[in-house]
Amino acid sequence: MGRRYDTICLLTDYGLVDEFVGVVKAVLADLAPHTSTIDLTHDVAPFDVRAGSLTLARASTYLPEGIVVAVVDPGVGTHRKGIAIEVAGGAGVFVGPDNGLLAPAVAIVGGAERVVELTNRAYQLDSPGPTFAGRDVFAPAAAHLANGVDLSELGPSLDPSLLIPGLVALPRLEGDELHAEVLWVDRFGNCQLNVGPDDVDALGTPISVGVTATDATTDQIVVHRVRTFADLGPGRIGAVVDSTGMIALAANQRSAASEIGLAAGDSVVIGRLDPHDRPASAPRATGVTLGRRSGTPPAGGHQ
Amino acid sequence: MGRRYDTICLLTDYGLVDEFVGVVKAVLADLAPHTSTIDLTHDVAPFDVRAGSLTLARASTYLPEGIVVAVVDPGVGTHRKGIAIEVAGGAGVFVGPDNGLLAPAVAIVGGAERVVELTNRAYQLDSPGPTFAGRDVFAPAAAHLANGVDLSELGPSLDPSLLIPGLVALPRLEGDELHAEVLWVDRFGNCQLNVGPDDVDALGTPISVGVTATDATTDQIVVHRVRTFADLGPGRIGAVVDSTGMIALAANQRSAASEIGLAAGDSVVIGRLDPHDRPASAPRATGVTLGRRSGTPPAGGHQ
Amino acid sequence: MGRRYDTICLLTDYGLVDEFVGVVKAVLADLAPHTSTIDLTHDVAPFDVRAGSLTLARASTYLPEGIVVAVVDPGVGTHRKGIAIEVAGGAGVFVGPDNGLLAPAVAIVGGAERVVELTNRAYQLDSPGPTFAGRDVFAPAAAHLANGVDLSELGPSLDPSLLIPGLVALPRLEGDELHAEVLWVDRFGNCQLNVGPDDVDALGTPISVGVTATDATTDQIVVHRVRTFADLGPGRIGAVVDSTGMIALAANQRSAASEIGLAAGDSVVIGRLDPHDRPASAPRATGVTLGRRSGTPPAGGHQ
Repeated sequence: MGRRYDTICLLTDYGLVDEFVGVVKAVLADLAPHTSTIDLTHDVAPFDVRAGSLTLARASTYLPEGIVVAVVDPGVGTHRKGIAIEVAGGAGVFVGPDNGLLAPAVAIVGGAERVVELTNRAYQLDSPGPTFAGRDVFAPAAAHLANGVDLSELGPSLDPSLLIPGLVALPRLEGDELHAEVLWVDRFGNCQLNVGPDDVDALGTPISVGVTATDATTDQIVVHRVRTFADLGPGRIGAVVDSTGMIALAANQRSAASEIGLAAGDSVVIGRLDPHDRPASAPRATGVTLGRRSGTPPAGGHQ
Repeated sequence: MGRRYDTICLLTDYGLVDEFVGVVKAVLADLAPHTSTIDLTHDVAPFDVRAGSLTLARASTYLPEGIVVAVVDPGVGTHRKGIAIEVAGGAGVFVGPDNGLLAPAVAIVGGAERVVELTNRAYQLDSPGPTFAGRDVFAPAAAHLANGVDLSELGPSLDPSLLIPGLVALPRLEGDELHAEVLWVDRFGNCQLNVGPDDVDALGTPISVGVTATDATTDQIVVHRVRTFADLGPGRIGAVVDSTGMIALAANQRSAASEIGLAAGDSVVIGRLDPHDRPASAPRATGVTLGRRSGTPPAGGHQ
Repeated sequence: MGRRYDTICLLTDYGLVDEFVGVVKAVLADLAPHTSTIDLTHDVAPFDVRAGSLTLARASTYLPEGIVVAVVDPGVGTHRKGIAIEVAGGAGVFVGPDNGLLAPAVAIVGGAERVVELTNRAYQLDSPGPTFAGRDVFAPAAAHLANGVDLSELGPSLDPSLLIPGLVALPRLEGDELHAEVLWVDRFGNCQLNVGPDDVDALGTPISVGVTATDATTDQIVVHRVRTFADLGPGRIGAVVDSTGMIALAANQRSAASEIGLAAGDSVVIGRLDPHDRPASAPRATGVTLGRRSGTPPAGGHQ
């Protein structure tokens, strides 16, 4: 028997209106009653693998030892693989579909060490239909792992380098403008960009953020570099270092996303506010290097 | 003292915005600190006993040993009874109002064995008002049962045959058309019908699904029998065997409900696509027999 | 070492779509794996300290022994204090921002006994940015308290009388009309007022409730005093004693809030229905006295 685990973190796009999440937890409680679960979120937008992978990546450095079951799985029931990935010398195992969902988080916590494909039917539930792998494949795999079943029992080994990578855009420097992307709009309307503070420090404050509207016109927004939301006066948009260490566009007790008109995936162009006052050397725009740094979200290319 | 229980599953229409669910859990933790809870869902539409009963029924075969507290209770504070139902030789107890909410799930797991009315005030909380039986009656009953109090202590026995039944429509065969009903639209827009695969296998694929619009015109939709969502091309609607073993109308990464214009409770008429190619014998339309089959939702008449 | 705690109740405005709540729980599980959490709610409207404080107050008398972490914190990262408040001889500790959020609940359970400011960085997480005190300050404080760290280790003592009070309007008697306020509209559309049954008992039934519309006209609504929702016929609005002992405007299986057009914070004027039949002595309108009475929400001025 292998190592046992007590905690199972869950992230899905199942929502909380139907009983899907409850049934997954019922299966876990039935098969591994000693475990407790932590809901990272179940409200990833339906089928949005990219958003789910970013959410999991942001949470990854805070997870306790144990198992993570993540399911955003538009290819459920097809030949996409179900996988389990051991990380950090066995301190954690990620379970889910091989579609890029797990990749950024796995990279952040040190990379895949052992990977198996979940093919052993002895560790799955019989399914009335093929559409609910969370209940029939992933939850049972997590429960058996938690009970001390070794990863190798769940199916054949896979080469970690052949897993589907996560895809996240790097910011791009054109002239002295930084072409960036909104990675995430949170509940409060803060817009996280794929740039870190180092990327924009040379631009001073305020900076200019160009947002292209649906009619293809571009608005230039004056954005103040501030430490926290309350430093922003009424009507102002700021750039804060957010809770994961990235730059986020924000407002004070208002939604920056609504005011600017931004959504996840949108492009923005960051530059100096005054075009007559450009620096001799362009701002460094190296993106963010992945690694085991607390709270660093994925911003590399393929992870 | 009777059997003790460690797990309490919860299903309500309380939502997660107010503190109702939290207070129920606080009462459980206060009275039975050794228990853990599983939220099946708290977002049953307000007052929708039928939807709640179907949700509980779908989950029922996956529940671990323990207690289920289910509350969708428009008659709270009236003479509708609060009840506890022992099932499966004491492996489970369902607690809630006697309004049909519990009936289909209880039937699926083998039927009511012992039933009591929750009248013993010694196992209830004093209430400032009569509107929150989940907190004042059902949660305390569940906690005391979990602590080993015997069912018979909570109130007088009731005859199981006198409980309010659940009402679910059977599909109806008219000529060679199967008149069916949408039982459930899930988060992804899949529309579960009250028919199983046997009911439509004889119709071949694709089949015709007639949907009556609000202006009383009827659209005939071409529906392909497929194994999983990804088997459907762009723009196509399919019929899959869903995770409970029933037929569901579905699309690939789109909402079939939105595209067809269907909601829970709507009627559809299923037939052969080509009226010139009808089989000599009409398709069998027996409905679904209840029983302890994994994942079978309730489709009988009174349960 | 001080007392240990097993249960941590959580109330925030983080929502359940982002991973904020999951990360807070991950930190708690990592630092204090023996604890379990109860979600009171995470859907307090963003930044709405008043609504959060009322929600916590309503739940307060039902909480088990343990720690409460409450975060509605528009001033995060500023000089507003993070605090921990010991109550009830150490049976409970409230952790959160010093902005009035905790005050009504603390008053209801007997008042603050020991208070500290959370300044000791040894019991906090290193933060990439200052915007997520729930993860970096409040959850670690709760976990260390649960592990037996004494309150005094977390930072310097504060004078309880200098904490920011909660502000809740008292009802006001003008002539024989009671000017009241909607404290809370729940999921079902029930409108809790800041008046108790004693305040309106002298008015008989039905009573008149005046609601001022956005165009400044006032509607007089006939409101029946009833025991429970089902006592109300179709189209009727009633006044029930709700689950916390306050008067709530309600309808039967419909939303009173939608039908009347009321939201939290709105004013209503309560009077006798027939102006020709006023009592010789005006109805008593003393408001509700705070204290350790089961389910009494805060209705005093500063608590």
